[in-house]
Amino acid sequence: MLRHLLWLFLVCVPAVAFAQTPVKESWVVTTDLWGNALQQSLTLERTGKRLGGDLDGEGVEGERSGSDVRFVVTDANKVQSIYTGKVSGDTLRGIADMPDTNTPKARVKHPFTARRIPERPAGPPRRHDFKPTTYSNEFSATREPVLTLWSGDTLKTTTLDSGGVDEHGVTRALFGNPQTGPFFIADARAGDMLVIHLKRLRLNRRHADSLDSIVGRALTPALAAKAAELGKPVRWKLDLERGVASPESPTERLKDFTVPLKPMLGGLAVAPDFGLPAFSTGDTGRFGGNMDFNEVVEGNTVSLPVYQPGALLYFGDAHAAQGDGETSQYALETSMEVELTVEVVRGKAPSMPRVESPTHLMVLGQAGSLDDALRSATSGMTQWLEQDYGLTLSESAQVLGSSVQYVVANLAGRSVGVVAKLDKARLAKLRREAK
Amino acid sequence: MLRHLLWLFLVCVPAVAFAQTPVKESWVVTTDLWGNALQQSLTLERTGKRLGGDLDGEGVEGERSGSDVRFVVTDANKVQSIYTGKVSGDTLRGIADMPDTNTPKARVKHPFTARRIPERPAGPPRRHDFKPTTYSNEFSATREPVLTLWSGDTLKTTTLDSGGVDEHGVTRALFGNPQTGPFFIADARAGDMLVIHLKRLRLNRRHADSLDSIVGRALTPALAAKAAELGKPVRWKLDLERGVASPESPTERLKDFTVPLKPMLGGLAVAPDFGLPAFSTGDTGRFGGNMDFNEVVEGNTVSLPVYQPGALLYFGDAHAAQGDGETSQYALETSMEVELTVEVVRGKAPSMPRVESPTHLMVLGQAGSLDDALRSATSGMTQWLEQDYGLTLSESAQVLGSSVQYVVANLAGRSVGVVAKLDKARLAKLRREAK
Amino acid sequence: MLRHLLWLFLVCVPAVAFAQTPVKESWVVTTDLWGNALQQSLTLERTGKRLGGDLDGEGVEGERSGSDVRFVVTDANKVQSIYTGKVSGDTLRGIADMPDTNTPKARVKHPFTARRIPERPAGPPRRHDFKPTTYSNEFSATREPVLTLWSGDTLKTTTLDSGGVDEHGVTRALFGNPQTGPFFIADARAGDMLVIHLKRLRLNRRHADSLDSIVGRALTPALAAKAAELGKPVRWKLDLERGVASPESPTERLKDFTVPLKPMLGGLAVAPDFGLPAFSTGDTGRFGGNMDFNEVVEGNTVSLPVYQPGALLYFGDAHAAQGDGETSQYALETSMEVELTVEVVRGKAPSMPRVESPTHLMVLGQAGSLDDALRSATSGMTQWLEQDYGLTLSESAQVLGSSVQYVVANLAGRSVGVVAKLDKARLAKLRREAK
Amino acid sequence: MLRHLLWLFLVCVPAVAFAQTPVKESWVVTTDLWGNALQQSLTLERTGKRLGGDLDGEGVEGERSGSDVRFVVTDANKVQSIYTGKVSGDTLRGIADMPDTNTPKARVKHPFTARRIPERPAGPPRRHDFKPTTYSNEFSATREPVLTLWSGDTLKTTTLDSGGVDEHGVTRALFGNPQTGPFFIADARAGDMLVIHLKRLRLNRRHADSLDSIVGRALTPALAAKAAELGKPVRWKLDLERGVASPESPTERLKDFTVPLKPMLGGLAVAPDFGLPAFSTGDTGRFGGNMDFNEVVEGNTVSLPVYQPGALLYFGDAHAAQGDGETSQYALETSMEVELTVEVVRGKAPSMPRVESPTHLMVLGQAGSLDDALRSATSGMTQWLEQDYGLTLSESAQVLGSSVQYVVANLAGRSVGVVAKLDKARLAKLRREAK
Repeated sequence: MLRHLLWLFLVCVPAVAFAQTPVKESWVVTTDLWGNALQQSLTLERTGKRLGGDLDGEGVEGERSGSDVRFVVTDANKVQSIYTGKVSGDTLRGIADMPDTNTPKARVKHPFTARRIPERPAGPPRRHDFKPTTYSNEFSATREPVLTLWSGDTLKTTTLDSGGVDEHGVTRALFGNPQTGPFFIADARAGDMLVIHLKRLRLNRRHADSLDSIVGRALTPALAAKAAELGKPVRWKLDLERGVASPESPTERLKDFTVPLKPMLGGLAVAPDFGLPAFSTGDTGRFGGNMDFNEVVEGNTVSLPVYQPGALLYFGDAHAAQGDGETSQYALETSMEVELTVEVVRGKAPSMPRVESPTHLMVLGQAGSLDDALRSATSGMTQWLEQDYGLTLSESAQVLGSSVQYVVANLAGRSVGVVAKLDKARLAKLRREAK
Repeated sequence: MLRHLLWLFLVCVPAVAFAQTPVKESWVVTTDLWGNALQQSLTLERTGKRLGGDLDGEGVEGERSGSDVRFVVTDANKVQSIYTGKVSGDTLRGIADMPDTNTPKARVKHPFTARRIPERPAGPPRRHDFKPTTYSNEFSATREPVLTLWSGDTLKTTTLDSGGVDEHGVTRALFGNPQTGPFFIADARAGDMLVIHLKRLRLNRRHADSLDSIVGRALTPALAAKAAELGKPVRWKLDLERGVASPESPTERLKDFTVPLKPMLGGLAVAPDFGLPAFSTGDTGRFGGNMDFNEVVEGNTVSLPVYQPGALLYFGDAHAAQGDGETSQYALETSMEVELTVEVVRGKAPSMPRVESPTHLMVLGQAGSLDDALRSATSGMTQWLEQDYGLTLSESAQVLGSSVQYVVANLAGRSVGVVAKLDKARLAKLRREAK
Repeated sequence: MLRHLLWLFLVCVPAVAFAQTPVKESWVVTTDLWGNALQQSLTLERTGKRLGGDLDGEGVEGERSGSDVRFVVTDANKVQSIYTGKVSGDTLRGIADMPDTNTPKARVKHPFTARRIPERPAGPPRRHDFKPTTYSNEFSATREPVLTLWSGDTLKTTTLDSGGVDEHGVTRALFGNPQTGPFFIADARAGDMLVIHLKRLRLNRRHADSLDSIVGRALTPALAAKAAELGKPVRWKLDLERGVASPESPTERLKDFTVPLKPMLGGLAVAPDFGLPAFSTGDTGRFGGNMDFNEVVEGNTVSLPVYQPGALLYFGDAHAAQGDGETSQYALETSMEVELTVEVVRGKAPSMPRVESPTHLMVLGQAGSLDDALRSATSGMTQWLEQDYGLTLSESAQVLGSSVQYVVANLAGRSVGVVAKLDKARLAKLRREAK
Repeated sequence: MLRHLLWLFLVCVPAVAFAQTPVKESWVVTTDLWGNALQQSLTLERTGKRLGGDLDGEGVEGERSGSDVRFVVTDANKVQSIYTGKVSGDTLRGIADMPDTNTPKARVKHPFTARRIPERPAGPPRRHDFKPTTYSNEFSATREPVLTLWSGDTLKTTTLDSGGVDEHGVTRALFGNPQTGPFFIADARAGDMLVIHLKRLRLNRRHADSLDSIVGRALTPALAAKAAELGKPVRWKLDLERGVASPESPTERLKDFTVPLKPMLGGLAVAPDFGLPAFSTGDTGRFGGNMDFNEVVEGNTVSLPVYQPGALLYFGDAHAAQGDGETSQYALETSMEVELTVEVVRGKAPSMPRVESPTHLMVLGQAGSLDDALRSATSGMTQWLEQDYGLTLSESAQVLGSSVQYVVANLAGRSVGVVAKLDKARLAKLRREAK
């Protein structure tokens, strides 16, 4: 009898309560499209048996009866996908009956699984001290997250150098910019903007490794002929007290040459969009990546478009200092302590990675040539001026013509990067809308 | 008898004196190569009848007898050209018997004329206040100079705006960046470096003209589709007292938008090399030209390679302010007062235009794509580091990799410009050789 | 008395006759805009004292009284320019009172001269056998024409090799692609298309000169390092009977290497537009120029936009054979016999140079990078398909996507060239409009 | 007794025989480098207990005792890696003790597994009729092979269209160029060249899908403004009997427009190199990929560098016809029957994909701009001329300058493709070395 009453309590009483306040749940749905994992964010609102909500922004209607779940997703063209499955704990498995995009009216059945995202812990944003034990050599949408964060949380952790070596000189991962992460930002969904506030970037060892190279993209044919003998390793001393780096065994002419330390993250990325495979940690795209931009420094924020549930944040490849373009192929490669705060801005995915400093707006265009990268950077800046300042293209043209700055971020990868910058002082008297 | 003695005095006595101190003369020789004017600098050292000296660096030997002159120029391969002619006042006319470069041992006769350059005035460098009455719409090696200067002289003059309009609003020349000049720098020869110290660049009227355009080179295809409606004139007010510019009839959102005035010369050039025709004043090259680089400002120096006797300095196309790349096609176009000092550095022609500010070394690469322009800029910077700091390419690679900056100068012309920059503070502890 | 009657006959009678049939005259008007020569085509129709006609398409009204001429040109915005002058023989000199484009309502006076073009000779098109005595090292709008042709005329003449050497091995002009011409095509006006039918291109000597180079634009950095030693002259034998060329002193491995002769004109141009200075004969543009495209061969036609009265046709720089792109910097450079027929198509200036063979339509895009050159070529082909076949852009897109070919024309100059080609067999069933 | 003797024969006698003729085994070794799979080809030669052989070309020495295996791999610098493990059937598992490339003398232990490759079947090369059931949306080095082939074998199979649709109109895979494969070529090792002889490429359905687009890379800004309205689907009829395609619902002007069928494979690839993640089936590289080159047709051969044991051959994305560059973004996308023969050429990995037709050598350069792609294509052609014809760079320069052709393969992907071509008739009298 008691059991019976308990059952009533569990099933019926909440159902009554739900009539007023539906229970919200967040899930990540992974649909297997012929071996390819489509990941989407599902919000379910349960009111008794009835289910409402949305799947990546498309309306959801259905019902749950015991462990049986069935819901229908309706897209903008009124085409429906029907999901049926069974819940077991925080997992839901079943079949999605979807339209065949190639053939009108034809339908295809795909298996799916869903994983329930735990609820946001009560209280103020949290602070995580995370010690990584694995590192990723690709920016992947399907790699297991190492930690779950919520918007507002702060993360303190470390990165290896580009060769996989930690602050103690121990190799802990494969060379090629192994990344710390991925971090699952629980409230980030496709179409959002993930803002990464770089609170602290601090060097944690006394040397960095570089080359005496000049990348091919910076060489005229005549200079290439002379540069054939370059490419030797150059180790740099990092004087953390004086804040400068200098070659450990300099030539006579460079014996007093020092450069100010300006620690930066070469790599910072979210997982790429569905339909793209994992990217090399040496590669870049709209998702960020191995941007090697020397303004990704302490005190600045980087904003990236979210493509996957949880965004999946990766970072690594710290540089103690780097000239524009990373012309030596390896900058001053080293390990680092990183402290950052994540922030999710709903539905404002930027078309290009953005960096904001106390003084400048910066948009990073990346493409196969500097000419195309500059086009992307300009386009991204007009998007920003429209979104945040409400400017028409004619107004943006006047601002850019009088005020834009263009710098080269990256020359060392498959794509190159060009940055469009605006001094915020120029925009100080324009009305900036809240994010 | 007296006449006889006088003759002795004029001819023999000097001859004796010349044995110790030959008379030096400077000429510009123009050889007509099938209708093309080859201009060269001739230094003649007369010792009695005997002539020594050099023609653009190749040894000259000959003799002058009355008005008859004959001299032989021997090149590095011991091939000789024989010049015979007659002097009349400061002019020498004759025939040059030269090797035929196409056919071994064949020779060709070409007419030549030479014009004697007056001697440098005694005393300290002079100051010229020059009021232009003509303007040039091309960077030409054969245009008549408007004034002769010597290294160290200071020139004060004015420029029109790019539409040919002066400080009073009167049209005085054809649109398309008409230039003040050319100025003949009497001691400049092919192979030298001409350093232009920009002492004062001051605005002299209250408005500037621009457009609300974005140049094609900054447009993605998607942005190009939206930009089709742009291109309208925008007049800017120049508030010389507050040091800012603002659109004269701004939209509501731009009503408080101002940009700091930073007067610059869009055009600054010497005459191009033999074998090239005149260049448009909208075009650029190693000779400088319409560089549209917003660091060509008061307090900075610009260094250009000298290709022609007298260098032939042109400048114009002042901008009250300009973003990087001149993305609006017209910057804030206006007229200007210019004061500059010229300096000739013998035999150190830079491979690319250089700009030096109190804080930075800057080399401007110009080419048909940003990718190629950046290559040229990098190459030019390694030349500078080698010439002035004695750095090997390996040493330059370390300096560049840790310290180079790249900015985009110009997107609005046939060629684009990319600048390689180095903060002079980085180089402060390296030994800079005297020019 | 007789004289009096005669005067009546000469002056009054024709005036009566003219009332029915106005006398047409063609002039070239050269207006001196602050030292820059604006050349325009003037058609005058005299009916008694009254003058009608047009100046580069803008309506002309005026009167002639004795040697005094006054006419008004009205542009599309109803703005008028007033020309007053005096005729003397076939020359007219005077003053043009024109609007100041910079300042509303302000006006400027410019001197002008006009030269009357002789009437077209009666009878069928003529054939000209022209022996050149001068050659031009620039594509200039102001160079004196060497001969006047009319649409339909055929011209037979010769060209020098790029070094200025003729068929007898004698140097006759300065190296750097000296051109035969310019030829004044009397009925060509700005806005027309000049079609050059290449009737015969025949080699007239037994050797050609080349290099063993690879141009910088074809070199990777690694290949550039190996290519530093290249650049040596290679003389080729031209076997006119067998129709092949082969290195005169080949290495063992190349001892049997031959290439088929395919004589072509590297240079073919009209004078460039007003506002541009002369172009180097090594340079290219929409006016044609040193296109170095190996389909400019006997049997093909080349179509160029006319910018200046008389078009001013130049050609030269024959190659006995050339790979795509002229990767050896010098192709097989030689002299040539040229026979061509000129044709003027009124008002159909192509946006890009066009080449038509018996089998293909070809449009040449030229720019600072292959990427931009290809864009221009594609754009020029869509213009052609629209003009001659009436295709919309959607229809052109289907034709191009299934059928376009792209080849590289030129890599050796300041600009590079990319050609968009269409096989005419693909278009055979579409309706081609008459030119 | 007989059994006992037989046992002696099987076990002991061969052991004696092995003293003269060691047993050869082929394995694929997969070492887990911090989560990254390094795959290498291991050849083991067993002589009794002793093991010799090589691992990707580095010498192997060791011993096998029962199921225990231990062997040492010595690289060119005499640095050794020690593998110890246990055999179970055709699997070997163990630990590799390897040098730490970051720290001199330090060592790291990595787990490895090895899989034995079955021996080549006796008899002549085989013919495989393979019906695919799965398709890959990435070019991956770690995907399970669908079939094992040996050099000389012929494979007959089918491909889906780029949307994943088969010859019956049924969707069988995710859109985005799903590929048939990968095929494991058992005798292919890193450093080899895989030659794919395309014996038959036959269309197997009656329609293809395309767009009326023009890709952004082919648009000038002005054309981009007009092209904004393009992008509509265009279905093409494939008339297999007449050998032509035509739009299914053409406009009036295109109603008679047909293009010849020329079936090609848009995608053809081997697995990419270690250190790179899987590539999108829309992407390209030295490993081939989505080359979209319209000479990948029946009768031609494609040669790719082998990076992974077994090469891992993928192909798909058939086009019924395609203009150069695939300017419509989708070519005439369709399904296909494919018959090909694979051939392994030991140790001659080409630097770029090569295509050979009965008449031409073709090398495909792929990069982020046409300018860089052309450099790669040229470099790849000089490698081919050196490898197969023994030409020095000076000799290659003469061949290229007189004879090279450049065409654009691909404009629609992240990288673009430029092809350097040589007519084999030009090379007919040069000595071609055996592969």
